[in-house]
Amino acid sequence: MTSAPHAKNVLYAQAGGVTAVINASAAAVIETVKQYPETFGRCYGAINGIKGVLEEELVDLAQLSDDDLEKLKSQPGAALKACRFDLDPLDHNPAQYERVLEVFKTYDIGYFFYNGGNGSMVTAQKVSDYCSSRGHKVICVGVAKTIDNDLDLSHCSPGFGSAAKYLATSFIEATMDILSMHETSTKFFVMEAMGRNTGWLTLAAGLVKDVVKDVPLILLPAERAFDKEAFLAKLDHLIGQHGYCVCAVSEGLMDKNGDYLSIANIEHTHERDYVQLGGVGSTLAHLVGDHLDSKTHCAIPDYCQRSASHLVSAIDWQMAYDAGQHAVLAAVENLHGVLPVIRQTNESPFAYDFTNVELQEVANLEKLVPDEYLSEDGMDISEAGLNYLRPLVQGERQIAFKNGLPDCAPIEFTYLPRQLKIYHAIK
Amino acid sequence: MTSAPHAKNVLYAQAGGVTAVINASAAAVIETVKQYPETFGRCYGAINGIKGVLEEELVDLAQLSDDDLEKLKSQPGAALKACRFDLDPLDHNPAQYERVLEVFKTYDIGYFFYNGGNGSMVTAQKVSDYCSSRGHKVICVGVAKTIDNDLDLSHCSPGFGSAAKYLATSFIEATMDILSMHETSTKFFVMEAMGRNTGWLTLAAGLVKDVVKDVPLILLPAERAFDKEAFLAKLDHLIGQHGYCVCAVSEGLMDKNGDYLSIANIEHTHERDYVQLGGVGSTLAHLVGDHLDSKTHCAIPDYCQRSASHLVSAIDWQMAYDAGQHAVLAAVENLHGVLPVIRQTNESPFAYDFTNVELQEVANLEKLVPDEYLSEDGMDISEAGLNYLRPLVQGERQIAFKNGLPDCAPIEFTYLPRQLKIYHAIK
Repeated sequence: MTSAPHAKNVLYAQAGGVTAVINASAAAVIETVKQYPETFGRCYGAINGIKGVLEEELVDLAQLSDDDLEKLKSQPGAALKACRFDLDPLDHNPAQYERVLEVFKTYDIGYFFYNGGNGSMVTAQKVSDYCSSRGHKVICVGVAKTIDNDLDLSHCSPGFGSAAKYLATSFIEATMDILSMHETSTKFFVMEAMGRNTGWLTLAAGLVKDVVKDVPLILLPAERAFDKEAFLAKLDHLIGQHGYCVCAVSEGLMDKNGDYLSIANIEHTHERDYVQLGGVGSTLAHLVGDHLDSKTHCAIPDYCQRSASHLVSAIDWQMAYDAGQHAVLAAVENLHGVLPVIRQTNESPFAYDFTNVELQEVANLEKLVPDEYLSEDGMDISEAGLNYLRPLVQGERQIAFKNGLPDCAPIEFTYLPRQLKIYHAIK
Repeated sequence: MTSAPHAKNVLYAQAGGVTAVINASAAAVIETVKQYPETFGRCYGAINGIKGVLEEELVDLAQLSDDDLEKLKSQPGAALKACRFDLDPLDHNPAQYERVLEVFKTYDIGYFFYNGGNGSMVTAQKVSDYCSSRGHKVICVGVAKTIDNDLDLSHCSPGFGSAAKYLATSFIEATMDILSMHETSTKFFVMEAMGRNTGWLTLAAGLVKDVVKDVPLILLPAERAFDKEAFLAKLDHLIGQHGYCVCAVSEGLMDKNGDYLSIANIEHTHERDYVQLGGVGSTLAHLVGDHLDSKTHCAIPDYCQRSASHLVSAIDWQMAYDAGQHAVLAAVENLHGVLPVIRQTNESPFAYDFTNVELQEVANLEKLVPDEYLSEDGMDISEAGLNYLRPLVQGERQIAFKNGLPDCAPIEFTYLPRQLKIYHAIK
């Protein structure tokens, strides 16, 4: 296929924490770009997000066979590697921006699709603006993804439904375990869910109510300060009634003073100290163990909840695919600095489409779990919350197994030979 | 169906930690008993294992419809509830044994199938012997199950293959995550596997080598004392070569002095203090974080690894079904005090059958991971280890989903009306 003479090349990259379906977005970008040869030339990928752009670690995505593309659609992790690395502000480090411009010029990049978090996508827009202001026009469109579901203006975030389905399934299975053994063994089980400031994934464990009727459940979403007395009172009540209690907690749970209940580690970076969360599940298990003088257990799915491509939500997978497709369609329409987000078009049966919002508009927003999705005491999910979640976990997507294990080996890319001088993004 | 006049009734019960496939054994017992109406009368279940026998919490398993039986085959947890409760020694508490005899007489129990760990099954045999010695003959046959794979004389334990498949899959998916993000994020990831004294489940994470070639891997099975210096040296070497390292560790990892690296809790029981393990993954993540001054992550699947019926090994499921079936067949042959165990009959392709061993013979044995399944440094799996594991994770068994969640609601049993005076098993 020869590109039209005016066609500009495409660059796609992945950034931030992965989701179980982020590679569906990648496949969608590649497949959709092919459908518009009048608009798009070559489709490149940067390895490691913007870091790979700076370091000229690029691949030609045309090297992927149809088989590779199919494999890509259920590969866990980020197939092109994802960075936790943002550009510095322009006035702090103009050299970074010049370098991106140099790379974009060299590869004749006219379209930049960045599959990342809010912050990264806005940086992508800024660098594209910089290129355009220097006479090299670049259209930048975001591809939404996050398991945290905290992307505002979007009904939900691609990646969330799968993490929610994984957590709910795991929580249901563990609940069936406790239910069957609590009389002579563990009486309290807690699962720790990701989500720094938001309790969406914690809330997802509440779907257990649709399977195990009248389950003795406590949810502790990050939006509510931990009230030890209220928690223990509810615990005692539930154990008195049912003999056991299951709990899901946000890793970022804080007390009334705004202090995290548990911190796994503090990472010292150049810019600021980064508090790494994790461990609040164990903290609660110990608290309850001491309180009840009973055996307790704690599960921390950690990265499994964002990389479990063996158990994705079919609708979420489709949303991730659609997010990639709509990013390309926005570029076809010459839209720049936008993010296609999900809009619910019908409540029951659930239906959605995509609409473009300004990247700048969503950058600093964070969608919290609304009060109406929680019970009055803030420690349970309401019917409204269940109604919100239910459509997002619908459908299963079978993946290929080989010799009993997921057939998901990393796709090996051949890097393009470097044309520019070596540049180290991180000194 | 009317039973033959000489047919005696059957009692089936579940004990100890659950497996993802324990209810397949239950279904097999129920279905196989039906095939021998000349031998067996009614098929009862005790709720909560031997505790339910003592407390006369019994159900008639004939109440299960064909649909229920199908649901049972993929229900997580122990459908009949499982106890962590053993009878006292006969000379300490003869009243317990008299009570069991009274219950067995009342319900005309002639066959006792106990689906539990070694210890529980031997207690079941003792109580059956007691009944027989008092003129009420009871045949007792064990039904093997444990995720720990520490049952000796058996090629493997029903339940292990599914836990191994779950852990290997989760570990592979998390490895793909780290692989794609380690350059600017987490460089060390550790997953904590169950197994108090044995490293079989830790070893199962080694199956990642069949999917991610040349993966920088450290396995820390319980069989080897933790050598901090050797561990950190290997870690540094692997991170130097690959930029990241993934690790699986047994919850029961000890140092050279025989002290656990991490203890979640200590439970004080009447008989002895019970050390509850858990947390060694976090301990290692912190150790490595300090050593590398880098972000690390830790996953603790906990109960999920033994209750994940959404991802079982098809061959393991079959083994669990077979274990129940062969227990009934042993009873048909009038064998008492035996345990049907798995014998490998062909190496490649893998084939197995069942053979009966004396319950007493396996009671105090514990199968450790043999040296030949580990690398020379004890921190990796050997080809022999991979060859042992590979056949045990083969095949997937699809389960029913309903509205996006596993269709696995607890089967509600109607208890038989009590005929005897109330008895409290636990004072």
